[in-house]
Amino acid sequence: MSTPVTLKAVGQRIPLADGLEKVTGKAKFAADVSFPGLLYARPILSPYAHARITSIDKSAALQVPGVVAVITAEDLPVKRPASSRNSAILARDRALFRGQPVAVVLGETEAAAQDGVDAVMIDYDPLPAVVDPVEAMRDDAPSVWPQGLPKGDSMADAHAGAAAEQGEAERQGNIVNTVHFKHGDVEAGFAQADVVIEKTYRTGIVHQAYLEPYAAVVTHDALSGQLTIYTTTQGQFGVRDEVAKLLGLERGKVRVVPMKVGGGFGAKYGVIEPLVAACAVISKRPVKMVLSRTEDFLATTPTPATVFELKTGAKKDGTLTAIQSRVVVDTGAFPFGLHGIIAILLGGYYKFANMDIEGFEVVTNKPAIGAYRAPGSPQATFAIESQMNEMADALGLDPLQFRLQNAVETGDMMPNGQPWPHIGLKLVLEQIAQHPLWTGRTPSANGQKRGVGFAVGGWPGGTSPASAVCRPDSDGMVNIHIGSVDISGSNNAMIAIAAEILGVDPSKIRIIAGDTDSGPYAPPSGGSQITYTVGAAVKRAAEEARKQLLEAAAELFEASVDDMQIQDGQVSVKGVPNKQMSIGQVAGRAMSGRTRTPPILGQGGSSIKDQAPGFAAHLVEVAIDGDTGELTLERDVVIQDVGRAINPLIVEGQIHGGASQSVGYAILEEMRYDEGGQLLSASFMDYAMPLSNNMPDFEVVMVENPTPDGPFGARGIGEPPIIAAPAAIANAVQAATGVRITDLPITAEKLHQALHNGQ
Amino acid sequence: MSTPVTLKAVGQRIPLADGLEKVTGKAKFAADVSFPGLLYARPILSPYAHARITSIDKSAALQVPGVVAVITAEDLPVKRPASSRNSAILARDRALFRGQPVAVVLGETEAAAQDGVDAVMIDYDPLPAVVDPVEAMRDDAPSVWPQGLPKGDSMADAHAGAAAEQGEAERQGNIVNTVHFKHGDVEAGFAQADVVIEKTYRTGIVHQAYLEPYAAVVTHDALSGQLTIYTTTQGQFGVRDEVAKLLGLERGKVRVVPMKVGGGFGAKYGVIEPLVAACAVISKRPVKMVLSRTEDFLATTPTPATVFELKTGAKKDGTLTAIQSRVVVDTGAFPFGLHGIIAILLGGYYKFANMDIEGFEVVTNKPAIGAYRAPGSPQATFAIESQMNEMADALGLDPLQFRLQNAVETGDMMPNGQPWPHIGLKLVLEQIAQHPLWTGRTPSANGQKRGVGFAVGGWPGGTSPASAVCRPDSDGMVNIHIGSVDISGSNNAMIAIAAEILGVDPSKIRIIAGDTDSGPYAPPSGGSQITYTVGAAVKRAAEEARKQLLEAAAELFEASVDDMQIQDGQVSVKGVPNKQMSIGQVAGRAMSGRTRTPPILGQGGSSIKDQAPGFAAHLVEVAIDGDTGELTLERDVVIQDVGRAINPLIVEGQIHGGASQSVGYAILEEMRYDEGGQLLSASFMDYAMPLSNNMPDFEVVMVENPTPDGPFGARGIGEPPIIAAPAAIANAVQAATGVRITDLPITAEKLHQALHNGQ
Repeated sequence: MSTPVTLKAVGQRIPLADGLEKVTGKAKFAADVSFPGLLYARPILSPYAHARITSIDKSAALQVPGVVAVITAEDLPVKRPASSRNSAILARDRALFRGQPVAVVLGETEAAAQDGVDAVMIDYDPLPAVVDPVEAMRDDAPSVWPQGLPKGDSMADAHAGAAAEQGEAERQGNIVNTVHFKHGDVEAGFAQADVVIEKTYRTGIVHQAYLEPYAAVVTHDALSGQLTIYTTTQGQFGVRDEVAKLLGLERGKVRVVPMKVGGGFGAKYGVIEPLVAACAVISKRPVKMVLSRTEDFLATTPTPATVFELKTGAKKDGTLTAIQSRVVVDTGAFPFGLHGIIAILLGGYYKFANMDIEGFEVVTNKPAIGAYRAPGSPQATFAIESQMNEMADALGLDPLQFRLQNAVETGDMMPNGQPWPHIGLKLVLEQIAQHPLWTGRTPSANGQKRGVGFAVGGWPGGTSPASAVCRPDSDGMVNIHIGSVDISGSNNAMIAIAAEILGVDPSKIRIIAGDTDSGPYAPPSGGSQITYTVGAAVKRAAEEARKQLLEAAAELFEASVDDMQIQDGQVSVKGVPNKQMSIGQVAGRAMSGRTRTPPILGQGGSSIKDQAPGFAAHLVEVAIDGDTGELTLERDVVIQDVGRAINPLIVEGQIHGGASQSVGYAILEEMRYDEGGQLLSASFMDYAMPLSNNMPDFEVVMVENPTPDGPFGARGIGEPPIIAAPAAIANAVQAATGVRITDLPITAEKLHQALHNGQ
Repeated sequence: MSTPVTLKAVGQRIPLADGLEKVTGKAKFAADVSFPGLLYARPILSPYAHARITSIDKSAALQVPGVVAVITAEDLPVKRPASSRNSAILARDRALFRGQPVAVVLGETEAAAQDGVDAVMIDYDPLPAVVDPVEAMRDDAPSVWPQGLPKGDSMADAHAGAAAEQGEAERQGNIVNTVHFKHGDVEAGFAQADVVIEKTYRTGIVHQAYLEPYAAVVTHDALSGQLTIYTTTQGQFGVRDEVAKLLGLERGKVRVVPMKVGGGFGAKYGVIEPLVAACAVISKRPVKMVLSRTEDFLATTPTPATVFELKTGAKKDGTLTAIQSRVVVDTGAFPFGLHGIIAILLGGYYKFANMDIEGFEVVTNKPAIGAYRAPGSPQATFAIESQMNEMADALGLDPLQFRLQNAVETGDMMPNGQPWPHIGLKLVLEQIAQHPLWTGRTPSANGQKRGVGFAVGGWPGGTSPASAVCRPDSDGMVNIHIGSVDISGSNNAMIAIAAEILGVDPSKIRIIAGDTDSGPYAPPSGGSQITYTVGAAVKRAAEEARKQLLEAAAELFEASVDDMQIQDGQVSVKGVPNKQMSIGQVAGRAMSGRTRTPPILGQGGSSIKDQAPGFAAHLVEVAIDGDTGELTLERDVVIQDVGRAINPLIVEGQIHGGASQSVGYAILEEMRYDEGGQLLSASFMDYAMPLSNNMPDFEVVMVENPTPDGPFGARGIGEPPIIAAPAAIANAVQAATGVRITDLPITAEKLHQALHNGQ
């Protein structure tokens, strides 16, 4: 297939396909779904961070008018042990974190269900909670899983585990997983170094804080046992597989319909769906559950808090000689496995001749963590990019040149021994070197406390296979069938790609996003992979449809297929421009049997093996009020390697959104727990979401460094912009004030304390 | 693609895929669809067969509590003139038949809407009605369309026509279309004949009388203007196109979701959908309309009554010399165009050296006709097959040998000059010659009035293009995406075809039947074409998926793709049977990126050019009560060329159903109108539906005469069994009693009269 030389649709700034319905409130979200006979489910969340559940008395609740059922772990038709947050549908015997669902009340109305919640009597026997991950690693810390996590695939294993737990024999510690990346000899490396820096960096727990809390509606067909799940999810196929596995159903008996998503950012992978599905199976009625904001804060899966004990060494000439680190990832009550990627990114941006990085995944009595846009990268990047600036300062080197000297390139090894695929880290850094905010920076003077700083970070990106179908209709509209969820405008990329290949206006492309029954297979919308992988499948499906259109047109024009062309939606014989037919007419003739070519239906797939990592830098200017510690982000230039901006408007929008979240991560947001494991910031009254007045006008610099495999060279662009603001702002704060903040978020309180009391 | 030599799935007797949900009442039909804010629509039908509508007073109706709107033709957002039954959404100025919708009332409940119907005041000025089609052809008959049918594509044309109508200038007659097939010299042919028979045959109006009356629910999205139509239809794409055209919408703005169909038989092609869609557009709320049985009888589209003046001649040796006929087709108030195929079939079964057949399509003040299973063929076959028996008797020849002597074969010309495609007419007749009921027949004796007769008839069948998608999932289920509606078990054929190609058990195949957005394009389920054309597309899609599965498996086994095989759902290397992987595992590995082959998704299309006509004979034995004229159908052997019985159980079921309808057509069913155009049989109290006690145990003889293009040789099998019972029974009655009935249905009353008064 030939790629058009001059791009027409790709590169156009086309507004979001579903923008109008979203801003006018017409878009249908999971909470809007209703059915006759619907029951409302209200969860009962554990008030304790750690407690034994000694009894649950449903009787008073069942007397409440309109209450239909009270469901506890004993009632669940589950077939798998609770070895992860998603499989721990309801707490059984023990509650492991404040907010863990313990029971659920089904009512004819939401109010009845809530009244039922208030009438369920649950007796708890509080247990010592472990809240701080570093303390959790101590041998004398309370154990979250004294017998280890339930393993195995059957409930029998789980019951055996629970029985064993009564005896409290063979008590297990809280370090559930480790990773160790080691090469060279770090002692020797540090010995060669002229400067060695050793510091500890900490990041807090941040919530994805999407606009739309978790919501799901599940119907159950009593005859066939078929479940249909309407939910706010980033990936319907994963939810289907998880629910089917947990409830012991064939996958085909579970249909997941992804609704519009009011923000996911990595969190919407199926936390409540197994619970709502179980309620529908038990009640044999449709069931709806919509979490309140506070329930969503308490019961879902935020980012991990992290602690980096980080030591690096370098020679006077700027050569990095060694990195050593102990990385602690607070995974909450269940493992999630982010310690690996965090360790990889920490040691992955720069060439270290000697390396010894140990990562620890530690369980605590807090909510299990989940993914949040470039999960783990803001944390790792905060540590390494803060320290790289400190190192450049200590060496008296320009922090940008120092980084360029050491930065990895395509083919260099990551800590795990895998080579970096095609990357643009240096290209991004080189853009900083040319930017007036960097070249024109001046030292903070006259007590102004203004400073410029930057940091860079990356995300490897996903490569899951995908398929797509392209079906031009007789009215000239081209239907593109995909199975991916549009959480970020990715459908607009599909529109541009198909329009480009087929030579039609983007307004003629219609995306038909399927559910698990109707959709071609696609990965979940995470890992910045949808445009890269589904887009590649759409490109091939459109190419196949184009080929069939040309074949049909060649029949109709009695010409050779090689002489046919499509221009502006019209098919004609090359050199005979006055005789033409629209692609809708050609498709219509194939549908009505006037060609030997069957109805046009192109199929395309992708199975890309190489990741397409995206790197992005934040180049920021901050101003700090010396009296209050208040930080104003004056400017934020986001420089990102986007591969190819399929739709620059949407790419910029993604970068604005990610940058906003990065700024929130840097200076405002944190889920704070007290020492007993109680969440202190479980509403937007307490949790400091960034507002528009916290944001500068972001300036976006798109570097187009095309990937070999992405459609038209595109690479994933969703995750990189969230990564680097915390480190960039910390570096700018240091430039402005001389103070180095090593603990996120960089609040006014911390700055004030640092400025007035020293660190 | 190689066809498996030994068939495993094709030919299996597998019960209907959706049989259980249908017999347990769980299947969802259009009337089961509901939405918040739903309005109920109740139609007001014209009480007159022909009347000028002088005024419609909505005011009292709008005072009825719960009535939301009264909609008349003036309110409709239509963009096309009323030139057909479907485009005549509501009567404008004149009502043309008893039962024509004149207005519709929308209410918050069905009861409120019905109260509104009773309160709408409509003044009619009755006009002379023309009811009998032969009378309608007279110059002095009242004219149904004095100014001719509205033509043109705009409402302006229609308004001009209506204005001109006021003047009653250039009055148009009721013959709206004619056809004339003529070759040779019929006068010379009759001159050569030793016997000439000339008789008139009449058939009445029969209703499709499906179990489920017309029903539709339409939602309207105020923001996008998107309409979604949930309806009982045989073809969603046609309904979409028609509604879009009538309401002036882009096709993409109309989504039609075909629900389960409680019988269609040719009638469910969109009679009420434009009206319900218009109500939704006007009210901007969801609207449901469900016709009562009486409304369905009055307002929908039954078969045409026909009159055949038929003259044939033959020599003593049995050679047919000439056919001459005047065929009158009563099309009701709007043209439908069945006169052509009726004339073709009348003269198409036998070789006539000389032919002169004229067909007339005549409008009357009765409901416009529609399709009913082999539309027109039972009528034409009744005439020609009755007369062929009379001719054989007159010549003293065996009626079977006489037919075999004259029957057409593949390549012989039809009256329209087109050659018959691959047919099995003679094969079917030869089966009669071998059947004991025929070989063992004896003359009616001892006043028993028992007789054996037979007749044969055929249907050309449709060939519309289709496409399909085959998507094996990781759990081993194979999803087949099609756009056709299953009104007859055709999905079971798709299951067998896909299972056969993929080498899996039929229980592993799942049909995903799409709506107009999600479905691959398919023709409507009419013309006995779904297994023939969609089946061919499914076969190719499965072949493509099989190819991809083998490619992926070759990668996983590190073997050549040519050495791979699929047996019993397991993929293995030929000769290495102990190392194998299920197709679900192979599909799962492709989905998870462990192959270069993308997720398996096969696409297939068909665009077959040759029809695959089906011929079927009824060989019957009747017993007649000489006192009452009551006819008992003692035996009915249905002999049919099915090409290949993909699923013999379903094929037999189709033949049983069609044969039952054929028997009803022959001896019971008729919509009777009085001379003023009032329907006398508008309920099942009056309309004589056949019951189980009218039916013999049908004996089915399937002749497998494979077609070149159908999947595994299949040809359409839905229509042929309805064709021949009327003529077969008339022939058996003649054998039993010597009486020849030429007027359908052959009721006890007619038989009694003929037996006691002569004819």
